[in-house]
Amino acid sequence: MTDTNAHAIAPGVIAPNLTPFEDDLSIARDLYLENARRLLNDGCVALAPFGTTGEALSVSTAERLEMLEHLVANGVDPARLIPGTGLANLPETADLTRRVIEMGCAGAMILPPFYFKGVSDDGLYAYYARLIEWVGRDDLAIYLYHIPQVSGVPLSIDLVRRLKADFPGQIVGIKDSSGDWTNTEALFDIEGLIVYPGSELPLFEALELGAPGCITATANVNTQAIARVVELYRQGETEEARGAFEKVRTLRLTVQDYAPIPAQKRLLAMQTGDGRWSNVRPPLEPLGEATGRELADLLREKVGLDVA
Amino acid sequence: MTDTNAHAIAPGVIAPNLTPFEDDLSIARDLYLENARRLLNDGCVALAPFGTTGEALSVSTAERLEMLEHLVANGVDPARLIPGTGLANLPETADLTRRVIEMGCAGAMILPPFYFKGVSDDGLYAYYARLIEWVGRDDLAIYLYHIPQVSGVPLSIDLVRRLKADFPGQIVGIKDSSGDWTNTEALFDIEGLIVYPGSELPLFEALELGAPGCITATANVNTQAIARVVELYRQGETEEARGAFEKVRTLRLTVQDYAPIPAQKRLLAMQTGDGRWSNVRPPLEPLGEATGRELADLLREKVGLDVA
Repeated sequence: MTDTNAHAIAPGVIAPNLTPFEDDLSIARDLYLENARRLLNDGCVALAPFGTTGEALSVSTAERLEMLEHLVANGVDPARLIPGTGLANLPETADLTRRVIEMGCAGAMILPPFYFKGVSDDGLYAYYARLIEWVGRDDLAIYLYHIPQVSGVPLSIDLVRRLKADFPGQIVGIKDSSGDWTNTEALFDIEGLIVYPGSELPLFEALELGAPGCITATANVNTQAIARVVELYRQGETEEARGAFEKVRTLRLTVQDYAPIPAQKRLLAMQTGDGRWSNVRPPLEPLGEATGRELADLLREKVGLDVA
Repeated sequence: MTDTNAHAIAPGVIAPNLTPFEDDLSIARDLYLENARRLLNDGCVALAPFGTTGEALSVSTAERLEMLEHLVANGVDPARLIPGTGLANLPETADLTRRVIEMGCAGAMILPPFYFKGVSDDGLYAYYARLIEWVGRDDLAIYLYHIPQVSGVPLSIDLVRRLKADFPGQIVGIKDSSGDWTNTEALFDIEGLIVYPGSELPLFEALELGAPGCITATANVNTQAIARVVELYRQGETEEARGAFEKVRTLRLTVQDYAPIPAQKRLLAMQTGDGRWSNVRPPLEPLGEATGRELADLLREKVGLDVA
């Protein structure tokens, strides 16, 4: 059996870091780097750049590579990066994936091809099999990305099991952002697979089944608190961890009631005083200032988060 | 009012031409050109390369451009091409669109950004508005592409009306592949908009409301018959057109019962004797030979189509 842990990053919280835009909608390079550094300094063990939260599919392949190179050129360790590289087509996904692996990234998080809907498990299997062949690198480490409510294309438990069994060295893990705990739980039965829930809500259930942590959007605005819960848990301070989790959970549920990407960007705009943070690329719409203040007030009241 | 008909192509049938692949899944350049020529010779007034039927989202941007250049370099008139250029992100969609317009194409068929679901009309409006700005060409002619059952992102009647009103010169037409006649019918009320149904099934209803024809996948295997129906109708031979339409309709309904893209590719493989035609890119799966023979038998029996 292949030792998949060779690829694994340290246990803890991984942030799918947000992608900040200038007012002309080009990527704000300075904020992109600043935010990545802050997240890693504040307790994230790694970043998952260009996930759904990072508006990955709203940025070009060239922009993804440029920003990853910008991070690495400025001292961010690529071994702490698991960038999203899943596009709808094979050749571009293979090229981008090869590039991030060559860059030294810990792995690549790869959506299923998401244009055609209702495709078969065999068709999706063929896609990933061909992808592994086309990338053509032994050090390829794939984290599958299951987020059917957005992608429209689920990765069934059977398919994940087949892929892990047939490509034990390349299929390293999965991020399950379905929010469906029954699905996440079933993934833990697949031997050798690293399972990250895509939210901190089922954190304890996941940690108890062997998850190294979680990959969660709210790490962008609540980094230290989520990281502390995982740390306490791992130190055996279960009760304290559960106590600290209450506010983490409340913040998550409160933010979830708003459009989560624009809401977190608005919160960062308020926290940093840099209005560029509120920009999103269409088809998303920015969260208005008044709504942002309403959310900030709620968070102050409920969990004592001090925004602005 | 801007004269949008300046952009329009001749009335008739437009084929979203299939994309043939070699056994290694690269595009079969010779077949791509051959098929385009055949379709134009057999009565299609234009082609819509890289639509859903052309497995557009399964090919890279570079491949799209290469194939379009290959067609034009070999004598295909770009004024008879309306290529699909809609990707999920703005910068790549703007670049590709600009390139096909520079090439002299009649227009570009543009999907809404299709990764995020449940986005607002305002968000989609902002996407197209920004796209028009980023393409930055007065001769830009956009055909909107409404295929919600695949893209997961509908273009509402209100949104289309707003876009046409605010960008009368750039928003030229729409292909409605929803299969929902109520929706197609409502689009005809939008002043100056060219409406193509994405199938030959509602051909007469659409022609009567002023459609110049239809853009239909089955034109790949039933070109002459569909073209003849439109021609007869336009010559005022309504009764004969309706008579000829019966077999066209039956063929469409028969093929629709199979996976349409693999099924048509298999039929072409049988018709031409070139097995490469049966290849599809994952996540689609090829139609098996036996199933292909079954479909061919059905078509021979029902409409007298002689396949192989």
